[in-house]
Amino acid sequence: MSHLIDSLVDILGRDYVITDSIRRDDISKTTLLFQNIPDVVIYPKTTEEVQKVMRLAQEKNVPVWVVSTGKNWGYGSKTAAYPGGITMILVRMNQIIEVNEALGYAIIEPGVTYAQLNEYLKSKNIKLWMDSAGSTESASVIGNALDKGRGLTSYADHFGALCGMDIVLPSGELMQTGGGPTNNNCSRYLYKWGIGPYIDGLFVQSNLGIVVQAGLWLMPEPEAFDFMVFQYKANEDRLPNFVDDLRQLVSRGFLPSRPHFANDYAMLCIVSQYPHHLLTKGRTHLSREALLQWRKSFGITSWTCGLGLYGSKTEVRLQKRMLKKVLGKYGRLQSFGIALRKDWVGRLAFWIAKKVARFMGISDEMVEQAVPAANLFKGIPTDQFAKQVYFKNYEAKPKGEIDPPKDGCGFIWIGPVIPFSSDDIQRIMDTTKIIFEKHGFEYFVELIIEGPRSIIFLMGIFYDKKNKEECERAEAWYFEIRQLCLEMGYPPYRETTQSTTKALDTNPEMKKLIGQIKMAVDPLNILAPGRYGTPLREDSKCNAVGND
Amino acid sequence: MSHLIDSLVDILGRDYVITDSIRRDDISKTTLLFQNIPDVVIYPKTTEEVQKVMRLAQEKNVPVWVVSTGKNWGYGSKTAAYPGGITMILVRMNQIIEVNEALGYAIIEPGVTYAQLNEYLKSKNIKLWMDSAGSTESASVIGNALDKGRGLTSYADHFGALCGMDIVLPSGELMQTGGGPTNNNCSRYLYKWGIGPYIDGLFVQSNLGIVVQAGLWLMPEPEAFDFMVFQYKANEDRLPNFVDDLRQLVSRGFLPSRPHFANDYAMLCIVSQYPHHLLTKGRTHLSREALLQWRKSFGITSWTCGLGLYGSKTEVRLQKRMLKKVLGKYGRLQSFGIALRKDWVGRLAFWIAKKVARFMGISDEMVEQAVPAANLFKGIPTDQFAKQVYFKNYEAKPKGEIDPPKDGCGFIWIGPVIPFSSDDIQRIMDTTKIIFEKHGFEYFVELIIEGPRSIIFLMGIFYDKKNKEECERAEAWYFEIRQLCLEMGYPPYRETTQSTTKALDTNPEMKKLIGQIKMAVDPLNILAPGRYGTPLREDSKCNAVGND
Repeated sequence: MSHLIDSLVDILGRDYVITDSIRRDDISKTTLLFQNIPDVVIYPKTTEEVQKVMRLAQEKNVPVWVVSTGKNWGYGSKTAAYPGGITMILVRMNQIIEVNEALGYAIIEPGVTYAQLNEYLKSKNIKLWMDSAGSTESASVIGNALDKGRGLTSYADHFGALCGMDIVLPSGELMQTGGGPTNNNCSRYLYKWGIGPYIDGLFVQSNLGIVVQAGLWLMPEPEAFDFMVFQYKANEDRLPNFVDDLRQLVSRGFLPSRPHFANDYAMLCIVSQYPHHLLTKGRTHLSREALLQWRKSFGITSWTCGLGLYGSKTEVRLQKRMLKKVLGKYGRLQSFGIALRKDWVGRLAFWIAKKVARFMGISDEMVEQAVPAANLFKGIPTDQFAKQVYFKNYEAKPKGEIDPPKDGCGFIWIGPVIPFSSDDIQRIMDTTKIIFEKHGFEYFVELIIEGPRSIIFLMGIFYDKKNKEECERAEAWYFEIRQLCLEMGYPPYRETTQSTTKALDTNPEMKKLIGQIKMAVDPLNILAPGRYGTPLREDSKCNAVGND
Repeated sequence: MSHLIDSLVDILGRDYVITDSIRRDDISKTTLLFQNIPDVVIYPKTTEEVQKVMRLAQEKNVPVWVVSTGKNWGYGSKTAAYPGGITMILVRMNQIIEVNEALGYAIIEPGVTYAQLNEYLKSKNIKLWMDSAGSTESASVIGNALDKGRGLTSYADHFGALCGMDIVLPSGELMQTGGGPTNNNCSRYLYKWGIGPYIDGLFVQSNLGIVVQAGLWLMPEPEAFDFMVFQYKANEDRLPNFVDDLRQLVSRGFLPSRPHFANDYAMLCIVSQYPHHLLTKGRTHLSREALLQWRKSFGITSWTCGLGLYGSKTEVRLQKRMLKKVLGKYGRLQSFGIALRKDWVGRLAFWIAKKVARFMGISDEMVEQAVPAANLFKGIPTDQFAKQVYFKNYEAKPKGEIDPPKDGCGFIWIGPVIPFSSDDIQRIMDTTKIIFEKHGFEYFVELIIEGPRSIIFLMGIFYDKKNKEECERAEAWYFEIRQLCLEMGYPPYRETTQSTTKALDTNPEMKKLIGQIKMAVDPLNILAPGRYGTPLREDSKCNAVGND
């Protein structure tokens, strides 16, 4: 055991310094074809411990990769961009410091999960709604926000909802953003821009500091809520009109939520398991005909989405009327309203909704998504949709908690940001479909409505990690589609750890500036080297133990 | 004529390099008790010229202070934080590069003014509304946003509405923010956070780069609009309830605009001239009785504000109903609706409104503010309210264009950010009133509704620049009130140039970080040294000519 490990044990206690090789391997597993095993994994509990570790790392010249809970599955989970070094996991820093109901914010640590925050709000009967990512309820609220993750309510922009951060700098110093008097700034959780440069942005998708506490804006519980499901049934050639009409709805405020439109395959992953029996011989992916046959058996159309309606009763009625008027032209719009109530009226209404749906060829599995989906639009987290990643090479989706990297699930996400315009959607669909086809994967797309001006065009593939040939295709798919999107001018909103060092390659001036800032605040390149476009360390293998 | 001047003339042409001492003095005048005269004033037209000047300044080691149009009256206008050096004014960079109606944004240069952008939109019949600052129509749209200025519509957060910047760095290099491929990023004006760290915030209230072009989000013209005037008439002891009710309205979305509540004195500045005859002997400011007498003659109550209503016809009706229900408890709420129409019906309705108001003791001057005020809520700029600064030591407010610094107007603003809560409003009112009283100024306050969580508590004084005793009181007032607000934990949202070097003194860790970043990107401290808390140069007098 080296001096470094001893010092870490001194700071954190033996239980929170992991050197066992099997555990280190487990912890650093990803759903990508990319994994770097750290020399040591640590779990600090307090800001002071984080500061001490950073000072130690500076002294010993050992890199520290930091994740909150490390649940950014499909983007890199807990792996570093390089082998070796210290990996710091902040899951034990899980205090909810304060929730201010009147002013609508919480102050939390990075280990606080969606499930935990929601539970806290509900148990204390606080009339504020959290916005949850559509992924797992065990994800870190702050971690997701710092990766620019998104949810579905009016507060879907998670980084946008952060206000006022406590940051441990690479030197180990503690800093408060917001510009006001340190430890005496009454508006630091209330007003984003502070005084002087607004620097919170330096700590998202970056390696300039460790956010150990942050303010998070929460949505006041509306007087009324409704949930609707929309199924696009028009011809594909009307998609451009649909997109432009949809943008109008969003920019005029008639769609206060931030829905995700899932294409047929994306929807099928949720309600079903992969139909290996429909795979004709010699094919690696379903033919158009097979897909249509499969989707028909579930009553799924080319695009599906859930919509949350918020406001006073009159406002919700108004939104509903507008949505019916506009979206009704393109498909079926079903309001769940009463069917979401938990009393006998609600159960009856839900039973009727199921019967009606069945009559229209829509499967029970499809209707059963309504409750968790509606909950998501109220900020109540669920693992229901994250479980889609088990749909391909597994018999069934697991019950209870999930751990896709450990369970060997293979999947990769990429979400280029495109203008909210029919031309751009058409252009990216036409070009990316070819890449999926070329590498033998089904076309998986979700249109994440970012706002009235842009859409995150989320694409993904599922692959069998035990199948070498499929893995090769998966990796080729990822790099080709990433390159294509960049060439089309559609940069991804988020990088996988596999490509994080290349994040700014297409903007060399910005890469240079951020490199200069990195050198200024972290001259030894200790904190998460390589993350989001800054250079890796010279010593490509950052052996913490060996260095000591 | 020094080599530096010759080189500047080579780059910009003789007409755009000002060395004449009277003109340099005129240009650098402020409404504060603070002015530094630069050695030379320059007016570049293109990004290339800005780049060349920065390279030259680096070579010659001469500081460059930059303003867009320099209309931040009451905060410092065009003066630098130090004497000498180059002052760069970007007023000639006034191109509107593009307006995208469907996606709701404009791309503009920093010399573009509110009047110009509004005129452009109207003349091309583009159905987008700009948000204008309440100050002068000749102010720079980008300049105001970079100072975190505010307007009154749903797009009141001017920095928040910037998306995608072209920046000349202190080195002279040009950089695009947004992270995407340089010159090929389709979403850079549409999606704020880009890829990697979000760095746009580094260029507001700072000296890390010169924004030579930016995207600006514009508001889609709503189907319906209305304008209401609210006059608070309840007892002062109900103010806490009023504030908490108001916050509910904002956080529930019933108040889509971002109004400013003016206290009696702030309102009187607009509609009247200072009543010197009411000033009893030996007093420097009006007694409570005199103020009440004066305000009564105009029918002004303790608080007044305009409110803009936006949405579909039904939504506007809904908002109106809610406002009447809630604000109606505290005072008089008048809708202007028809009276704002330009046809005979409108003129008739306005005439009737005036008669009714007169009957209720409200002066014509007061009612006449309705049209420019309503316009402001539609993003149409006006100098009407900026002219209040001529109310104290002038016979009447000027007609036509104004230039308060040149006309010798003395006034200073300070706007601490406070929580949107009755306790904080009460606390800051109780404490700051004493400071006004102590230094012999009338209490001027506007409550700027920043959002559902915070309020900018804008205070100001008007003083006679020719009266030495009054000037001394003014300066003492400013530093004392600034200090008091900081001690109470209410940092100002914006600094005057007079105190800009102290901007981050109460947050030494952030000051240090920004200092490190400044050193990294501008090691010679060339660009606007001292601005927002970074150090001044060692040579306290930055003589450009002498240095050469």
